[in-house]
Amino acid sequence: MTRIEPRSGTSFVLREGQRLEVVDIEGGQVSDLLAFGLADRREALSNGRTFDYEETISLTAGNTLWSNRSNPMLDIVADDVGLHDFLLTPCSKDTFRHFYPDKPVHRGCFGNLAAALEEYDIAEDDLPCAFNVFMNVPVDGQTGRLSVEPPVSKAGDTLTLKARMDLVIGLTACSAFASNGGTFKPIGYRIL
Amino acid sequence: MTRIEPRSGTSFVLREGQRLEVVDIEGGQVSDLLAFGLADRREALSNGRTFDYEETISLTAGNTLWSNRSNPMLDIVADDVGLHDFLLTPCSKDTFRHFYPDKPVHRGCFGNLAAALEEYDIAEDDLPCAFNVFMNVPVDGQTGRLSVEPPVSKAGDTLTLKARMDLVIGLTACSAFASNGGTFKPIGYRIL
Repeated sequence: MTRIEPRSGTSFVLREGQRLEVVDIEGGQVSDLLAFGLADRREALSNGRTFDYEETISLTAGNTLWSNRSNPMLDIVADDVGLHDFLLTPCSKDTFRHFYPDKPVHRGCFGNLAAALEEYDIAEDDLPCAFNVFMNVPVDGQTGRLSVEPPVSKAGDTLTLKARMDLVIGLTACSAFASNGGTFKPIGYRIL
Repeated sequence: MTRIEPRSGTSFVLREGQRLEVVDIEGGQVSDLLAFGLADRREALSNGRTFDYEETISLTAGNTLWSNRSNPMLDIVADDVGLHDFLLTPCSKDTFRHFYPDKPVHRGCFGNLAAALEEYDIAEDDLPCAFNVFMNVPVDGQTGRLSVEPPVSKAGDTLTLKARMDLVIGLTACSAFASNGGTFKPIGYRIL
């Protein structure tokens, strides 16, 4: 298992048919996931296309994550947790200033993803909304209000995705206070 | 008032401080809205940043629509309807094939927006999720399931947005069956 240290990120190639297992090593930790077409990085993960085709905002085993070009990118093939978020964008210097004005500014998942994806010629403005693994964002169906709650994932819980095309993946151990119940832990991953 | 014919789209510049009034001329018709920075079209409307900063998926008067760079793009200053969607992507040839396999394929709002925005050097891959004015997409807070229901807007109902920066706007009269209660009507707009 490869370990992503707290408040950091990485990138790698995931080939069609390979499975990516994301591991919450200690429990209660979010991991922001991005995907881009390896052949053409202008093809990227799209929350809106995914909500459209899957007809739900709650994505778990059996659901597929779609690209902006309406192609399947990743199938969710196993899920110990069942609560993930695809509504919110990666935390960034701007979100730290907005939500945590009294705390030191961190470049967040957005900065970590941008740095990790630079070697694949993917720029900051190309980063779409991430699929936020283990992130717990309940939505009130009546009012539309959302909140960011501590993840319910336990130590060792995993989410497994299978690539439907050759992909560049960006993956983090999330840096935002509210998303991770106030503490920052590592994330593990395996390519199977 | 400028009229957008059924199943078509247009683009125009909206200067900082100007207000855009979107008019549902006949009632029950959706209008997909996109916004890009006029100075740098790589800055674009972002559903995820908006959900983050507004802490809701239900956007109405008093809410702001944000860009991928965490800048305010449009304030919603008046809203006769109160039901709009920011979850789903514009209908396209692919969504027609998926949702309406027995009906003729239409380029949809996605194709109409891409064609209208070409003169501003905005390409298909640059189109983010649209703010879908008057679109009625209830979400079940327990299951996450969403559905596309007929708009509740009546003839003459309006939504008014105020520009917080100089913008390129893309605007349509939506082309999808389910979104518009099965019939296609025009959309009007005024720049105030």
